[in-house]
Amino acid sequence: MKTRKLTSLIALALSSMALAAVAQPAKPGAATTPTTAAEAQYQGAASPLAGAAMHQSSNPKAPPMTEEEFARARQIYFERCAGCHGVLRKGATGKPLTPDLTNDKGTEYLKTFIAYGSPAGMPNWLTSGEFDEATVDLMARYIQHDAPTPPEFSLADMEATRKEYIPVDKRPTKKMNNYNIENIFSVTLRDDGTIALIDGDTKEIISIIKTGYAVHISRLSASGRYLYVIGRDARLNLIDLWMEKPDNVAEIKVGLEARSVETSKFKGWEDKIAIAGTYWPPQFVLMDGDTLKPKKVVGTRGMDINNEYHPEPRVAAIVSSHNKPEFLVNAKETGKVWMVDYTDLTNLKTKQIDTAKYLHDGGFDASGRYFMTAANASDKIVVIDTKESKLEAIVDVGKIPHPGRGANFKHPKFGPVWATSDLGDEGISLIGTDPKKNKDHAWKVVQTLKGQGGGSLFIKTHPKSTNLWVDTTLNPDAKISQSIAVFDINNLDKGYQVIDIAACAGLKDDGAKRVVQPEYNKAGDEVWFSVWSAKDKESAIVVVDDKTRACKTVIKDKRLITPTGKFNVYNTQHDVY
Amino acid sequence: MKTRKLTSLIALALSSMALAAVAQPAKPGAATTPTTAAEAQYQGAASPLAGAAMHQSSNPKAPPMTEEEFARARQIYFERCAGCHGVLRKGATGKPLTPDLTNDKGTEYLKTFIAYGSPAGMPNWLTSGEFDEATVDLMARYIQHDAPTPPEFSLADMEATRKEYIPVDKRPTKKMNNYNIENIFSVTLRDDGTIALIDGDTKEIISIIKTGYAVHISRLSASGRYLYVIGRDARLNLIDLWMEKPDNVAEIKVGLEARSVETSKFKGWEDKIAIAGTYWPPQFVLMDGDTLKPKKVVGTRGMDINNEYHPEPRVAAIVSSHNKPEFLVNAKETGKVWMVDYTDLTNLKTKQIDTAKYLHDGGFDASGRYFMTAANASDKIVVIDTKESKLEAIVDVGKIPHPGRGANFKHPKFGPVWATSDLGDEGISLIGTDPKKNKDHAWKVVQTLKGQGGGSLFIKTHPKSTNLWVDTTLNPDAKISQSIAVFDINNLDKGYQVIDIAACAGLKDDGAKRVVQPEYNKAGDEVWFSVWSAKDKESAIVVVDDKTRACKTVIKDKRLITPTGKFNVYNTQHDVY
Repeated sequence: MKTRKLTSLIALALSSMALAAVAQPAKPGAATTPTTAAEAQYQGAASPLAGAAMHQSSNPKAPPMTEEEFARARQIYFERCAGCHGVLRKGATGKPLTPDLTNDKGTEYLKTFIAYGSPAGMPNWLTSGEFDEATVDLMARYIQHDAPTPPEFSLADMEATRKEYIPVDKRPTKKMNNYNIENIFSVTLRDDGTIALIDGDTKEIISIIKTGYAVHISRLSASGRYLYVIGRDARLNLIDLWMEKPDNVAEIKVGLEARSVETSKFKGWEDKIAIAGTYWPPQFVLMDGDTLKPKKVVGTRGMDINNEYHPEPRVAAIVSSHNKPEFLVNAKETGKVWMVDYTDLTNLKTKQIDTAKYLHDGGFDASGRYFMTAANASDKIVVIDTKESKLEAIVDVGKIPHPGRGANFKHPKFGPVWATSDLGDEGISLIGTDPKKNKDHAWKVVQTLKGQGGGSLFIKTHPKSTNLWVDTTLNPDAKISQSIAVFDINNLDKGYQVIDIAACAGLKDDGAKRVVQPEYNKAGDEVWFSVWSAKDKESAIVVVDDKTRACKTVIKDKRLITPTGKFNVYNTQHDVY
Repeated sequence: MKTRKLTSLIALALSSMALAAVAQPAKPGAATTPTTAAEAQYQGAASPLAGAAMHQSSNPKAPPMTEEEFARARQIYFERCAGCHGVLRKGATGKPLTPDLTNDKGTEYLKTFIAYGSPAGMPNWLTSGEFDEATVDLMARYIQHDAPTPPEFSLADMEATRKEYIPVDKRPTKKMNNYNIENIFSVTLRDDGTIALIDGDTKEIISIIKTGYAVHISRLSASGRYLYVIGRDARLNLIDLWMEKPDNVAEIKVGLEARSVETSKFKGWEDKIAIAGTYWPPQFVLMDGDTLKPKKVVGTRGMDINNEYHPEPRVAAIVSSHNKPEFLVNAKETGKVWMVDYTDLTNLKTKQIDTAKYLHDGGFDASGRYFMTAANASDKIVVIDTKESKLEAIVDVGKIPHPGRGANFKHPKFGPVWATSDLGDEGISLIGTDPKKNKDHAWKVVQTLKGQGGGSLFIKTHPKSTNLWVDTTLNPDAKISQSIAVFDINNLDKGYQVIDIAACAGLKDDGAKRVVQPEYNKAGDEVWFSVWSAKDKESAIVVVDDKTRACKTVIKDKRLITPTGKFNVYNTQHDVY
C-alpha cells in the first residue's frame, strides 16, 4: 500500500499539476485563464473562437464523444495527464497513449487503469476521489481519439500579452526603500497565484504580489535588483526590488505551460537578457531583461539522444553560466542540454549536448564551473562543464533523483561534493566535484546516505553551515512528510536527526502540513521551511536556527496560502546552495 | 499565355517532381519504391503493413473518401503537390492547404483551381493533360481532409537500409585505373535512376551506375576519390573512383525525399564526414565519409525568421566550409542557414543564422569565404561569411533567383562579382563580392544583364574563360529553352550571342530538347550542355569549344536517358564555378 501511494505521489510530483494535486485537488478548468486567442481556441468550446479554430479529427475506431465532452476531456487531460504522458501523448514519465495503442486496449481496460492506477506510478484517480465514475469513462474514451495538438505560441503571440506596468525610464534610478534586499525571500503562494516578499531580517511580509498560477521558481538578476517569477501557466512577472514597495514592472505570457526562467549573469551582460522555457509549446524565448520584450524564440523539437524524433521536448531547468555568456537549457524528453550563447541573436550559436533522459532539475557545483542535473528516468546525474561547454560525466545515483539545485559542501574525507536526494528511494548521493585536487573521487558517488524515506524534493546546506537538510515532502507517511532530516556534515556516519517542523508551526487544523524546501538566509545561520497545507487550511513558514537546530520563528499570516518554494535573494543571485 | 505557362513551369521547377514533370509526366506510384517499413506504411494501402500503421483521421467537414481513394490521393499529393505546398500543407512556394482553409472553399472551387491553375504559379493539371477529371475530383476532396503526417525516419531506420557493398579494407589503396579522374563528369540520368560517369578527355562513357531516382546532385570528397550522389527518393550512393571500374561501395536511404549531400573539406577532415539533408523528414544526418554509417541526426523543425513555428523546414542546399570544420545547411522554410560544426558530435555546436525565405541553392564567391545563396520567395541573395560564421549581407535581385552554384568572374569595372540568373525573369544579377578592395561595390548588384528570358536554372563560367553561359531550360518558348545565351565578360554591354545547342545535337525525334546546365571541364576550355528530352526520346550531351563557341563533340548513346546535371570532378571538388 505504501509503495502504491508513494509511486502515485511521485507520478504526481513529476506531473504538471503535481503540488496542487497533493495539497488540494484542482478543479478542472480552474487552473488556467485563457489570455490569448490561440490559447482560448485550444482550451475549449467555451471560447467564442473555439468553433473557428478547431478541426476536431475523430478517429473512427474510437468510441463516440460529443464536441462538448471532447472539449472537457481535453481540458482535464491537459491539467491532469499531460505532465506525465505529454500533451501529444507520446509518453515520457508516463506511458504513450496514442490511439494505435489505446484503441486495442478498449474502454473497459482503460477505465480500470484510470480508476485504480498502477504500481508503476499511475495515480488511482477514482479511488483517490479526484475523478468520479463519469470522468473516468470520459477520459477512457478521450484517449482513444487522436490527440489534438495545442496551438503554437509565436513571438507575436507573446508580445501581444506583454505589459510594461512601469516603463524603464519611470523606474527608480536607485534603491528607494530601506529593506535589506539581499535577505528578502520570494515565497511561492502556490494556489493563490501570488508570491510573498518576506523581509528576512524582520520576518515581516513586505507585500503579496499577483503573479501566474503556482509559481514554479523565482530567479534574481545578476545585480540582485530584478526578481523574475514564472507560473505554471507560463505567465512571467518582473518585479523591481528598488521600488519603495517592490512590485510588478512588467509581465508576459510565454506559452501555455512553463517551469523555468533565468537571467544573464556573465560579466558585461548582467541584467541584460532573460530567458524562459516552456513545456508547451516545447521551446524557449530570450527577452530583454528589463522589459521582457521577446527577442528570439527557439524550438526544442528534434532528435533525442537515440537520434529519434521527439515532438514534445519540454524545457525543464535553465541555469545561467558564470563562465561564458551562455544559458544551459534542459530539454527533458530529448535528453539534451542546450548551451545557448546570448551575445548574437541573429547568428544564434547553440550546442546540443547529448546526456540522458529525462532531464529535470539541477544546479552548480561549489566552484560554479559544473552544472549538475538530474536525468530522472535513468537515475543519473549529468555533469556539464560550463567552461568547455561540453559533457563532463554521467553518474549513476539512486531512484528518480530530484536535487532541486542540490547541496554543496566539503566532505571531511572526499573533498568537495554535491548532493542530491531522491523521489524514488531514501538515498542521498554525494558526488565528488573536484577533478583537479580530488581526481579519484570526481564524478563518482563517494558516499550514499540513508534519509527518512522516499518522496524527497529538496536538499540544502550553506557554505557557512555544517548541516545538511533533506525534506521528504511527498512521503506517504505523515510523520515523515511533516518533518525534516538533518545530517552533521562532519559526522555523516552518525546518521540524521529528525526535526518535527510541522509541530513547530503549531497549526491548529488538520491540514497536510507537508514540510518542503529548506532555504537559507543570506548569513547562513537560519533555515526556512514551508509547512504547506491545502488552500483552505492554515500554512506557515518555520525558521530554524541553524546552529542549535531549534525552531526560532514561525511566520503565520492569513495571506500565506499554500507556501511552497522560497528563494533568498542573495543565495539565488549568487547560486549559493 | 506565355506568362501562364512560364509560371506553371516555375512552380514545377520548385516542386519535388519538377524536372520529371517537365520532361515526362511521372506515373503516380512509379517514382519511388518503398524500402523501409516506415515508408511502406506511409506510402499506401498496397503495403501489407498499411493497415497496422494508419490511423486515418477523417475531418467530418470533408467530403467522404474510401480508404483506397485516400491512399491514392496521398501518393499523388506527395509526388506532385508537396514540393510547393509542403507535405503538411502549411504552404511554402504554394499556398497553405489545411482543412481550415480548404473546407470553406469547397470541392467545386478547389477542382477549378486544380484543373486550370492560376497565374500565380499553380499548374493547370487538367488542361496540361497530367490529371484526368477523376484525379482532379479526387485531389479536391483529399485536400479537405487532415494532412496525414508521413513517418519519421530515425538513425536506426537509416542504418537498416545501409549497405556496404565493398568494406573499406577491401577497397583499393591507390588508384587502380588509368582514367584522368579529375576530368571525369558525373551525369545525372534523371528518369533512369542512374548516373553516367563520362571520361572528360575521351568523351567515352566509363560506366552507368545504379543510384536513387532523379539524382539531384553529385559531390566529390575533398581528396576527389569519393563521389556522393543523392536521389530525390533520399537514396545516397557512395562511388569509389579509385576502383578499376568505379562503382558503388556503399549506399543508404536517409529519408523519404532529399536534395542535398556534401562532405567535409576542412584541413584535417578531408573525406571524413558526409552530410545529407532531407525534405522529409525535415532534418539532416552526419555520416562516416567512407561507409555512410549514420552518426547524428539533427531536426530542422523550429522557428522561422519571424519567430513562428514551422513544422516542415526542408533542407535545401548544403555546402562545406573551407574556413572551418563546418557545413552550411539551408533550412528552406525557416529562412535559416545552419552552420554545423562536425568536430564533436556529442556536443554538437551549430549556429542558426536568420536570413530570408525560402532558402534554395547557392555557392561560394571566388575567394571561397562567402556563401551566396538564393532566398527565392523574397527575390534575394543571402551572403554568409564562413570565416566569421555570420550573416554578411542580404541583396535584392530579380524574380525568383536560381543560381545553382552561381558564376564568379572579375568584372572589368567592378572587380570580383558573383552572378545569378532567375527563374522568374530574364535578368542576370552581378553582385560585388570583394569587401576589402572593392568595398563600395560589395554586396550590391553592380550590373543587371538581360538574358533570353525567364526559366533559367543555371549560369556558369570558369576562371580560365571569358564566357558567361546562361541557360533558359524552363522557358516556354522552345527556341529559347533549346538554346543558350553567352556573354563576353569583357564586353557585357554588347549583349549575348545565342548558340543553338539543340541543333548541334542533331537529334532526330521531336523531344523537348531542353538545354540545361553548362558545366566546364577541368581545363576550362570546354563547356558541356545536356540536351534533355523525355525518357522515350533521344537526348545528348553537347560539348562546346569555349574559345570559339562552336559545337565540338556530341555525346550520344542509347544509355544516355534524360541527362540533366553534370558534375566535373575537379571543379566540383574545388568549388570552381
